[in-house]
Amino acid sequence: MTRSELQLLRSLRDKRHREEVGLYAVEGEKVVAELVAAGHPFEKVYATDAWAGARTHAMTEADMARASHFPAPSAVFAVGRIRREALAPGELDRGLTLALDGVQDPGNVGTMLRIADWFGFDRVLLSPACADLHSQKVIQASMGSFARVRAIVTGLGAALAGVKAPVIGCELEGRDVHALPALPDAVVVIGSEGRGLSDEARARLSYSVTIPRSGSAESLNAAVAAAIVCDNLRRALG
Amino acid sequence: MTRSELQLLRSLRDKRHREEVGLYAVEGEKVVAELVAAGHPFEKVYATDAWAGARTHAMTEADMARASHFPAPSAVFAVGRIRREALAPGELDRGLTLALDGVQDPGNVGTMLRIADWFGFDRVLLSPACADLHSQKVIQASMGSFARVRAIVTGLGAALAGVKAPVIGCELEGRDVHALPALPDAVVVIGSEGRGLSDEARARLSYSVTIPRSGSAESLNAAVAAAIVCDNLRRALG
Repeated sequence: MTRSELQLLRSLRDKRHREEVGLYAVEGEKVVAELVAAGHPFEKVYATDAWAGARTHAMTEADMARASHFPAPSAVFAVGRIRREALAPGELDRGLTLALDGVQDPGNVGTMLRIADWFGFDRVLLSPACADLHSQKVIQASMGSFARVRAIVTGLGAALAGVKAPVIGCELEGRDVHALPALPDAVVVIGSEGRGLSDEARARLSYSVTIPRSGSAESLNAAVAAAIVCDNLRRALG
Repeated sequence: MTRSELQLLRSLRDKRHREEVGLYAVEGEKVVAELVAAGHPFEKVYATDAWAGARTHAMTEADMARASHFPAPSAVFAVGRIRREALAPGELDRGLTLALDGVQDPGNVGTMLRIADWFGFDRVLLSPACADLHSQKVIQASMGSFARVRAIVTGLGAALAGVKAPVIGCELEGRDVHALPALPDAVVVIGSEGRGLSDEARARLSYSVTIPRSGSAESLNAAVAAAIVCDNLRRALG
């Protein structure tokens, strides 16, 4: 491994560098194995002798420690090429979409990819203010769903303009989520925990739904709220 | 502040020390303000001049940095007394209980306290293998619900023995959670993400429920699964 190669791998911890070179990193035996099992195409898989899976480049433990983004490096460092997915015209009118509006916590973003995958959603939209789709925390929290879910980074104001399917916001006030009708096509918009929905997303809503509260908590975690709305949507579809 | 006082505060980062002295720590302006607003009784509130709320002990920034459990200390360090709640005889036969079985992720444990609070559950049980109820990560993730939810640390095998209310496990196979009947009294048991339910808890189940999957993810996050079961339980109660 040359010094500049190690430096490149290490630089992938920064979103700006990832976007410059069009690459992202995934470290950790479990997550790399999950993604490989899901058929995810990596450009390169660097690994020490402790890694049991396939590799394209052997690496010493000392080099792994230099490349790694973590204080305790694993045995594998995979590099993928960033693919910028774009919405096809009219795409949001068909099927189920989960749209994340400024969800900044990477654990929540990854968990919502997993939720969309569980409930068979057709795609996930991420507004540019969301945690970066190609950060290791997001990929890790998705538990392999990163490889299976079609995810598109896009401004929601423009993406939701003219959508004919109902665009449903999840908020603290709105229609009872238990009364959702059967909607084969719909967009569910989840806002950030701190600030809720953005003005540009709220302007595109058909209506809002709310999760009935029987107790005293002020709010639910954004991923938890998303999951409950998805479950109710699937339940209404039967 | 004496050196031994600072050392005591710092030692509260370890569960063993917390249990020895019967105290726990909460740092951070937002979480302490939430708990105080919820009427939570703290023994002592140490704060620097940057803290706008009530305090019982003034502290310099340098001392706060010595006491703090975090690299970036906040303006407030609150100390509470650990109260060991115990189950009353027959208590689990009345109302709704969320039982956490070896949930080790502190963020998940805190999120489930918040979920129990939102859905008006009467209590939460934590098996001894769960993340410590009095760790800062649990308290932080509960978003103030730590102050409102009755939480009891107890072995689930013994606690669930002889319970007359239905004891419902959440697993990957079981009855459809959408078909839950109206249950004013019930115990919902959520296992760890990695290992599922323990043998001692599974032996006490009346039956299991599962969340219908339409897609490909292998599982859901434990807190997400708990929330969906709680929502369906409340929905069935009408």
